[in-house]
Amino acid sequence: MKTLLHPTRAVALAFLFAIVTGTVLLLLPLSHATAGEVPWLTAFFTAVSAVCVTGLVVVDTGTYWSTFGQTVIMVLFQIGGFGMMTAATLLGLMVNRSLRLRTKLITQVETHALGLGDVSSVARLVLVTTFASECLIATLLTLRLHVSHGLPWGEAAWSGLFHAVSAFNNAGFSIYPDSLMRYAGDALILLPVMVAIIVGGIGFPVLHDLRTKWHDPRHWSLHTKLTLSATAILLVGGAATLLAMEWSNPKTLGPMSIPGKLLAAAFASVSARTAGFNAIDIGALTHESWALHYFLMFVGGGSAGTAGGVKVGTVAILLMLVVAEIRGLSDSEGFGRRVSHSAQRQAITVLVLGSAMVVVGTLFILRGSDIPTDQVIFEVISAFGTVGLSTGITADLPESGQLMLTLLMYVGRVGTITLAASLALGERRMPYRYPEEHPIVG
Amino acid sequence: MKTLLHPTRAVALAFLFAIVTGTVLLLLPLSHATAGEVPWLTAFFTAVSAVCVTGLVVVDTGTYWSTFGQTVIMVLFQIGGFGMMTAATLLGLMVNRSLRLRTKLITQVETHALGLGDVSSVARLVLVTTFASECLIATLLTLRLHVSHGLPWGEAAWSGLFHAVSAFNNAGFSIYPDSLMRYAGDALILLPVMVAIIVGGIGFPVLHDLRTKWHDPRHWSLHTKLTLSATAILLVGGAATLLAMEWSNPKTLGPMSIPGKLLAAAFASVSARTAGFNAIDIGALTHESWALHYFLMFVGGGSAGTAGGVKVGTVAILLMLVVAEIRGLSDSEGFGRRVSHSAQRQAITVLVLGSAMVVVGTLFILRGSDIPTDQVIFEVISAFGTVGLSTGITADLPESGQLMLTLLMYVGRVGTITLAASLALGERRMPYRYPEEHPIVG
Ligand SMILES: [K+]
Ligand SMILES: [K+]
Repeated sequence: MKTLLHPTRAVALAFLFAIVTGTVLLLLPLSHATAGEVPWLTAFFTAVSAVCVTGLVVVDTGTYWSTFGQTVIMVLFQIGGFGMMTAATLLGLMVNRSLRLRTKLITQVETHALGLGDVSSVARLVLVTTFASECLIATLLTLRLHVSHGLPWGEAAWSGLFHAVSAFNNAGFSIYPDSLMRYAGDALILLPVMVAIIVGGIGFPVLHDLRTKWHDPRHWSLHTKLTLSATAILLVGGAATLLAMEWSNPKTLGPMSIPGKLLAAAFASVSARTAGFNAIDIGALTHESWALHYFLMFVGGGSAGTAGGVKVGTVAILLMLVVAEIRGLSDSEGFGRRVSHSAQRQAITVLVLGSAMVVVGTLFILRGSDIPTDQVIFEVISAFGTVGLSTGITADLPESGQLMLTLLMYVGRVGTITLAASLALGERRMPYRYPEEHPIVG
Repeated sequence: MKTLLHPTRAVALAFLFAIVTGTVLLLLPLSHATAGEVPWLTAFFTAVSAVCVTGLVVVDTGTYWSTFGQTVIMVLFQIGGFGMMTAATLLGLMVNRSLRLRTKLITQVETHALGLGDVSSVARLVLVTTFASECLIATLLTLRLHVSHGLPWGEAAWSGLFHAVSAFNNAGFSIYPDSLMRYAGDALILLPVMVAIIVGGIGFPVLHDLRTKWHDPRHWSLHTKLTLSATAILLVGGAATLLAMEWSNPKTLGPMSIPGKLLAAAFASVSARTAGFNAIDIGALTHESWALHYFLMFVGGGSAGTAGGVKVGTVAILLMLVVAEIRGLSDSEGFGRRVSHSAQRQAITVLVLGSAMVVVGTLFILRGSDIPTDQVIFEVISAFGTVGLSTGITADLPESGQLMLTLLMYVGRVGTITLAASLALGERRMPYRYPEEHPIVG
C-alpha cells in the first residue's frame, strides 16, 4: 500500500483517472455536435490531449464537439493544468525538505523558500492565481471580441473564456480550426493571450517568489533567477530568429506590416515553447523555422507551472555546467550560487531520457507511415513538450501513430516532473566507493 | 610564443597546414584526370575531406582525379589519420600526467597506463600498427580482386592499397563512384575492410591495452572496458536495427539472400559510425534508417584513433551517469571503478557543443537551399562525425553549404579532441566557493 501511495505514483494515477473519465464523457452522444458515434480513439486522443494540456487534435474542436463536449474539454485542461501545477509544486517541496534533512549547507540558503507545512494553502494559492488570471484575461478577450469584432455577447464570452482558460493552462485548444490566425493582426487579442501563457507557464515557485519578494530580487531563489533570465533570452531570441527566417516568406510574415511582423513573431515565440496557439500557419513556415521550433518546443516553459517540455531551468543548469567547464571552473555557478551536483545530474538525466523518448517516438511513427521525417519530428516533439502545434499531419497519422502521440503526451507531461522528483527523492549515499578513474573523453 | 605552442593549438595548426598544402597540390593540372582547371572549392573541399578523413566528395574520386591526384588524396588521409591518432594519444597522456600531478587517488589506479616518457615511441608504435594493418589488408584485397574479380594485377593492387589505407584511416574515400556497392555480396572483400575499420577506429589507447595486457582483461583501463563494450553493443545493435528496418526494402536488403542481408547490415553498421564506405545505397534507405544513422554517425568510434564523432567513450560516460542517477547512486560507476566528476563534465560539454555545431550547421544549410531537412541533417552529422556517407546531395549544395561542410569536418575532427584536452588541461581549483543551491529540475 505504501508503494502505491508513493507521491509520484499518485500523480501518475490521478492523471490516468482524469483521462479515463474524460474519454467516457466525450464518448457520450451529448458531446458530439452532430448525430453518429464518436470513435473511441477520437475521444481518447482528445481526452489525453486535454488532460495533458497539449492541444493536438484529430478533429476540429469547434465543429466536431457540441458545446457540452467543448465544456468537457475545457474542464479537462483546466484540471490538467491546475493538477500539474499543484502536484509539481508539492513534489518540489518534498524534494526540498528531503534535501534539507540530508545536508546542512543547503538549509541555510533555502529556508526562505515556501514550506511544505500547509498542503491546502499551496492548492489555494494556485487556485486563486489561476482563477484571477483567467477571469481578467477572459474579460479582456470578451470585450474585444464583442466591441471590435462584432461577435454577439454570448459567443464573445464563450470564446473569451475558452481561450483564456486554454492560454493560462498552456493548453493550446481553440474553438477555431485555424487557431488564432483570424486575429493575427490584433494586438488586443494576442497580447492578453501572451500574458496568460507566460504567467501560467513560468511556474508557481517563480510566481510565489515574485509575489512575496517583489521588491527584493536579490533574495529570489536561484531557480527563479535562472527561470526568469532563461525565459527572457528564449522569448527575445526566438522572436528575433523567427523574424529573420520568416521576414519575406509570402505565406507567413511576408505580407504583414512591420508592426504586424513584430507582433506575429513575438506571439509565435511565446506560444512555441508550450502554449501551442498559432497566429501564423505552422505548415507554411520555412524548414529552418521548423528546426527552431524543435528546440523551443523541447525546452518548454518553467518548472511546476502549466508548461511542458524539459523546462527552461533544466536547460539552464546544463548550460551553466558547460560554461563552467569551458572556463575551467570546478564549480558550476551563477548569480553568486553554486549548483549542486545532484541537480546537475538530475538535469542531464531528464534531458537524456527526454531525447530518448523523442527518438523512439520518431522512429516508431516513421516506421508506420510515409510522412516526411521533418514533419514527424515536429509532431513528436510537439506531443512530448505538450505544445500542440502541428504541421497538419495529426489526423492523417495511422492509429498506431496517434496512440504513440498519446503516450508521448502522457510521458511528456507526467513523466518529466515525476521523474525528476523520483530521482531527487531516491538519492542515497553508498556505504562504499570504488576507486576513481578518468576515462578519455572526445 | 608559449601560447602559440600550446599543444592543442599546435594540433589545430598542423591540420590547417596539411589542408593548405593538399589544396595547392590538388589545384595542379597534374592532379586532374582531364584537361581544364580544377575549381579552387573542389580542391579545397577534397583536401579538407581527405585530411579530416571524412570521405564526402563533390566530384567522383576515381574519374575526376588522375592517379597522381588520387595518390595526393590517399597521402592526405593517411597523414590525417596518423596525425590525429598520434596527436590525440599524446594529448591524452598529457591530460593523464596533469591529473596525476593534481590528485593522488588517480595515480594508484592509472600507473599501469602508457607513460608520456617517450613521445617518439608513441609515434613509432602508431606507425608500426598502421603500416602492418594496412599491408595485411591491402594484400588480402589485392588477391581477392585479382583472383575472383579478374582485375589485372596493377589495378587490383592500386584498388587494394587505396581501400585498405582508406579503411584503416576511416577515411571513406573510394575510387569507385558507388563506393563498395559492387562488392556488396563478397564477404572476402567486406570482412577485411570491416576489420581494418574497427582496428583503426577503436583508438590507440585500447590497442595498447590489448597488446600489452591481452591475457589480463581485469587490468585493462576503464576507458578500454567502456570503449570495447560500447562498441560491441553499437555494432550488434546497429546491425540488428538496420536488418529489421531494411529487411524488405526492395532498393537495399530486400533482394538479397539471408546471409547477404546479414553481411550487408553488419557492414553498414560498422561503416556508419565513421568509416563512410557503403555497400548499399544510402539514398535508398528508409527514413527510419536515416534517423538511426544520425545517431550512429554522431557517436562515432573510439578516442584517439582514426574515428570521428563524439566518441563511444564519451557517450558511455553519459549513460553511466544517467543509470547511476536512476538507481539513486551518488557515484557514477562501472567495472568496479568510479568515473571522476571532471570526466563527466567534460563528456557533457563535448556532447553539448557537438550538438550545437550540428544544429547551427543544419540551420545554415537549410537557410541557403531547398534540400529536405532530413537529408541536410544527414549530411551535417556525416561531416561533423567525419563519416562521409551521403544521401547524394553533397555536389548539389550551394558554395556556402559546401564551405559549411568543410568547417564542420574540421571542427568535428580537430575540435572534439582538442576541446576535451583543453578542458582537462585548463581545469583549476577556485580560491572560494559560493553557497550551494538545488534549483528545480523538470
Ligand atoms: K499546449
Ligand atoms: K570517414
